[in-house]
Amino acid sequence: MQDLTADAGRAIDRAPDGRAVDRALERALVLAARGPADGPNPQVGCVLVDPAGAVVGEGWHHGAGTPHAEAAALASADRARLRGATAVVTLEPCHHSGRTPPCSVALRDAGVARVVYACADPNPVAAGGAAWLARHGVEVRTGSRSGASPHVLDRADRLLEPWAAPWTLGRPWVTGKTATSLDGRVAAADGTSRWITGAAARAHAHTVRTAVDAIVAGTGTVLTDDPALTARRPDGSHHARQPVRVVVGRRAVPPDAAVRRGPGTWRHAATHDLAAVLDELGKDGARRVLLEGGPTLLGAALRAGLVDELHAYLAPVLLGAGTAAVPDLDIATLAQAQRWHTHETHRLGEDVLVVARRTERKH
Amino acid sequence: MQDLTADAGRAIDRAPDGRAVDRALERALVLAARGPADGPNPQVGCVLVDPAGAVVGEGWHHGAGTPHAEAAALASADRARLRGATAVVTLEPCHHSGRTPPCSVALRDAGVARVVYACADPNPVAAGGAAWLARHGVEVRTGSRSGASPHVLDRADRLLEPWAAPWTLGRPWVTGKTATSLDGRVAAADGTSRWITGAAARAHAHTVRTAVDAIVAGTGTVLTDDPALTARRPDGSHHARQPVRVVVGRRAVPPDAAVRRGPGTWRHAATHDLAAVLDELGKDGARRVLLEGGPTLLGAALRAGLVDELHAYLAPVLLGAGTAAVPDLDIATLAQAQRWHTHETHRLGEDVLVVARRTERKH
Ligand SMILES: NC(=O)c1ccc[n+]([C@@H]2O[C@H](COP(=O)([O-])OP(=O)(O)OC[C@H]3O[C@@H](n4cnc5c(N)ncnc54)[C@H](OP(=O)(O)O)[C@@H]3O)[C@@H](O)[C@H]2O)c1
Ligand SMILES: NC(=O)c1ccc[n+]([C@@H]2O[C@H](COP(=O)([O-])OP(=O)(O)OC[C@H]3O[C@@H](n4cnc5c(N)ncnc54)[C@H](OP(=O)(O)O)[C@@H]3O)[C@@H](O)[C@H]2O)c1
Repeated sequence: MQDLTADAGRAIDRAPDGRAVDRALERALVLAARGPADGPNPQVGCVLVDPAGAVVGEGWHHGAGTPHAEAAALASADRARLRGATAVVTLEPCHHSGRTPPCSVALRDAGVARVVYACADPNPVAAGGAAWLARHGVEVRTGSRSGASPHVLDRADRLLEPWAAPWTLGRPWVTGKTATSLDGRVAAADGTSRWITGAAARAHAHTVRTAVDAIVAGTGTVLTDDPALTARRPDGSHHARQPVRVVVGRRAVPPDAAVRRGPGTWRHAATHDLAAVLDELGKDGARRVLLEGGPTLLGAALRAGLVDELHAYLAPVLLGAGTAAVPDLDIATLAQAQRWHTHETHRLGEDVLVVARRTERKH
Repeated sequence: MQDLTADAGRAIDRAPDGRAVDRALERALVLAARGPADGPNPQVGCVLVDPAGAVVGEGWHHGAGTPHAEAAALASADRARLRGATAVVTLEPCHHSGRTPPCSVALRDAGVARVVYACADPNPVAAGGAAWLARHGVEVRTGSRSGASPHVLDRADRLLEPWAAPWTLGRPWVTGKTATSLDGRVAAADGTSRWITGAAARAHAHTVRTAVDAIVAGTGTVLTDDPALTARRPDGSHHARQPVRVVVGRRAVPPDAAVRRGPGTWRHAATHDLAAVLDELGKDGARRVLLEGGPTLLGAALRAGLVDELHAYLAPVLLGAGTAAVPDLDIATLAQAQRWHTHETHRLGEDVLVVARRTERKH
């Protein structure tokens, strides 16, 4: 301990500068993204940098029941090179013994002199790692005080935002999906909507389905399109992981509706109270919910502030008439428009996917 | 001559294979794109490959009054290495003496054994280069017979398509522009439309303005928005090259309309006959026309098949109501939808630009 504190004291002079923190954090984010986005645990990455600035260990969390990112990084490193090292982590190291021992203790025990992390742990059960480390002679730097640039900190926030929803929003993370023509129509004048987007966009939408815990559609869509709402591969076979299918609305779901068949479970919520539906799904353990339409349901969710992310698939198609993707939102003038933030864009064959988030950038 | 023919005969065995043609043509396309896209001459690139497959010369056309791509490539090469070489060109070599001597003759005189080109010259005055070369002992391969893949030939076609419009369409190339919310609105319920897209998208739109010969807007847009329709830099200063500003519609243009001021010329076409307006612009030498709205004018142009390319700027904004980007096009069911082809996509700050073309891929 004596020794360690001395080491830590010396190492302060060799703290990585902003550029080095950015580089390490960007690498940690790349590693973090390798972990599963659809599990109960966050995607976390960790890079260990020695006092000379060399990377001496790396790790990421591979999913529930496997070591945390910090533990994986420590395991990958030559212990002798960890004295005075800096651990750069995308999320505050945990401080609870769950299926794995606390990372706070592991980092201190390994001789790490400094911990730099991007996001505080929103989970009250796991939080407290930073405070414990600081009390035990490890220098802790976080957020803008870490030296990292706002851009990189923002990326870290955005990676964790969906996972953090139960604590930050008190409900699952909600993604609203639309598949439209370039002029914003989800169906032609006669109601036909299959298919506006192409095969690549539809395949992508199915990989999103398999990554969420529940898919929600309105009775209108179920009665018009009779969708299966299952996650399928291009050959029609079902993915192993299937979301719960939820139909919302007071009308009855026909006995022969496709949503009743297929693997996994379905339920009918004969209500217009979307917040209650999300609440119930959250209580059942759902962390990610996909709103698959139609426009009436999406409009109600948007007005209630219940949509966190938009997946807008846009096909190079013009319709000129037909159902608008978004119904009236009581927006009278441009200054009242809902302004989102473009998170990602993807080219999918002829189509484009715009992923937008409601949240302001914080940094 | 004797000598040359013998050389050419031997070189056939060493003709570049499909992969090598693709590689050379892709390089020639990259070179071609360095030339100006807004001049009277086409963007052309040329790569010279010796019988061993090595690149011995490269060139592209820098714009009217400068050497053609083939001449530039020949000038860049060591003449001794051109014997038996293959010239890979994006466009059929010209065969007329304009401001520069015919490329056909220059290639033959340099000892080139084979000419591979992607697109035939649509200009009757310049065409005939391929036939002349073939008559003079140079092997000529073109289109799918060149060994190039459909994908690369398609790129070559698309690069030249706007320039070729006067011959292939008999009128200028028409780009329709929309700046919309993700749900396809060009204005909010009260008509406000400034600004839906962000600064980066607007700056891009101004660089497009400076590359066209004419900007066309309807009286509706002029009376509602009073746009200047000039090409400006972000600081508000005018670009050196200004398109002609054309207002189309029977209503009068107010004496204090912004379109009347600013550099360059403007005109009022008090008609609904867009084809006639384009015809007149074409006769005045316009090759590229930008249709800047509004929805009524765009709809009329789309119905008449007068739009060749769409520039759809999409902002991560939801409006739920307001003016639709595209009015009724008499499309009743999805099978009748106008399907375009995504040519390019660009991320511009928070916004996305989808460039789509009407034409089918030919290859
Ligand atoms: N291209 C796409 O991305 C896409 C996706 C989905 C649907 N669509 C198209 O959209 C059309 C269907 O549109 P839609 O708007 O009728 O479908 P919808 O939004 O799926 O269903 C509307 C129904 O949802 C129920 N509902 C539940 N909660 C509600 C709330 N808070 N407020 C109001 N209603 C609520 C109501 O049903 P009750 O009356 O039963 O209570 C309402 O009539 C079809 O043409 C379909 O093809 C397109
Ligand atoms: N966000 C964007 O990209 C964008 C761009 C432009 C405009 N806008 C918005 O669009 C709105 C204006 O819409 P708008 O549709 O009235 O504008 P518009 O299309 O510019 O003007 C319509 C007028 O064009 C004339 N016209 C010329 N040729 C025609 C033809 N073949 N068929 C029919 N009419 C023809 C008619 O005028 P006469 O009656 O005088 O003959 C018609 O009333 C404004 O709110 C503006 O802000 C948005």
